[in-house]
Amino acid sequence: MDIIRIDDPRDPRVAAYLDIRERDLVGRHGRFVAEGKVVLDVLFSAGRFAVESVLVLENRLAGLESTLRKAAPALPVYVASGEIIDRIAGFHMHRGILAIGNRGAGQPAESLLATLPAGALVVVLVGIANHDNMGSIFRNAAAFGADAVLMDATCCDPLYRKAIRVSVGAALKVPFASFGDAGHITALLDRLGFGQFALSPRGETDIRDAQRTDRLALYLGTEGEGLPEALLSRLRTVRIAMAQGFDSLNVAAASAIALHHFSRGG
Amino acid sequence: MDIIRIDDPRDPRVAAYLDIRERDLVGRHGRFVAEGKVVLDVLFSAGRFAVESVLVLENRLAGLESTLRKAAPALPVYVASGEIIDRIAGFHMHRGILAIGNRGAGQPAESLLATLPAGALVVVLVGIANHDNMGSIFRNAAAFGADAVLMDATCCDPLYRKAIRVSVGAALKVPFASFGDAGHITALLDRLGFGQFALSPRGETDIRDAQRTDRLALYLGTEGEGLPEALLSRLRTVRIAMAQGFDSLNVAAASAIALHHFSRGG
Repeated sequence: MDIIRIDDPRDPRVAAYLDIRERDLVGRHGRFVAEGKVVLDVLFSAGRFAVESVLVLENRLAGLESTLRKAAPALPVYVASGEIIDRIAGFHMHRGILAIGNRGAGQPAESLLATLPAGALVVVLVGIANHDNMGSIFRNAAAFGADAVLMDATCCDPLYRKAIRVSVGAALKVPFASFGDAGHITALLDRLGFGQFALSPRGETDIRDAQRTDRLALYLGTEGEGLPEALLSRLRTVRIAMAQGFDSLNVAAASAIALHHFSRGG
Repeated sequence: MDIIRIDDPRDPRVAAYLDIRERDLVGRHGRFVAEGKVVLDVLFSAGRFAVESVLVLENRLAGLESTLRKAAPALPVYVASGEIIDRIAGFHMHRGILAIGNRGAGQPAESLLATLPAGALVVVLVGIANHDNMGSIFRNAAAFGADAVLMDATCCDPLYRKAIRVSVGAALKVPFASFGDAGHITALLDRLGFGQFALSPRGETDIRDAQRTDRLALYLGTEGEGLPEALLSRLRTVRIAMAQGFDSLNVAAASAIALHHFSRGG
């Protein structure tokens, strides 16, 4: 790797790291920010995204050596003092380990589905607009061996900085794609031989009684509204049985239970 | 209820709401802050804590009527404009629905356990120091009908403002108590006839094969360190099977899976 000392926060080589928080809101021209040793480890190991550079606090470099060995040899690794890093990022970076990745072109859901194995497990998200939930769902998807995540246009960005952090890097590992029309995706998954289950508080089957199909798609919607009726009417619906009087489960918690149930992991 | 208009942010009647964020850090003399309509609904319905007052944005009062009807008739309900509420709270309160509750004396774990029914489900937390995780675990505990949560001294406060919010009020509903020595609690639960399971990535039994006992205690530890070895060696340990290469599950997600498995709800 190529270690480069940065002493000026306005150095053009670290321009991609400037004012990280503000730039979350306006997009980053095809880039994303990954933070922390564990996330960088997944970023390099999974190898799904090109990495443009790393910026690391000088006293964290030694501890990052085994992680950086997984990266391309020519990767620029910028090293700076705490004061310089804080001035670059625009706030206090107590972790002090950052990388800029390149999103690449993205993939239509159709071509991602074409790459999946015979016994694939796919998560389909509709209206997941909260980055914490998005990150947690990706983390659970990775933990239980999901092969892909498909998202409708009302879902938030899984490569948003906080979503990546909450996912502990899973958003950089589990392949994902966006789709426009849910009806189209449902028809396509059906043609591809996927059993399709929608999680809903009013689902017809207790999830404990739902059988894994060889290829399986699990649909998750928002906590408030749930999945649209038009979609629920075309899918097998499953519910998670809850105690009387408090039938409210976070969608990420629901994804953990459902993915664990349908997973073949272990 | 007693509706009182507040026009001065320094009015002593709303002193308990001053600078809410800062006061989170220094404690509040036996009080806690509950936010939002759904949380207040649980606060009044559960009736576990005395409520000192409510502070609500003037244009939210009408929508809160059915919730406030569950409160004591003499409850002071302070109503203010957005500008005044923001100046009281010290930041922009877009929800604009707050209540101050009284923690009461608290209960030793022993006396809480003495009140539990024959088929009780108890969650035992060791070292859960993150308020998001604490709130999520309480939410899952309520969703799956847990009768009590016991916490060691290294756990964070479930009545911290953010923990209550993330729990969607479950921290105000599910009875909890603190304990000092885990060994003492384990011996006590044993005497009271509880089967005791510890969740651990290296658990001896896949949770799918773990049988519910009539009275059951489920131990959860931190994500990083897990439960102390001294504790694990004395309990039946269960694991959640995960995909190869990404064996990291958030403790709240793990609690959802385990509580769903052991729950008799539905």
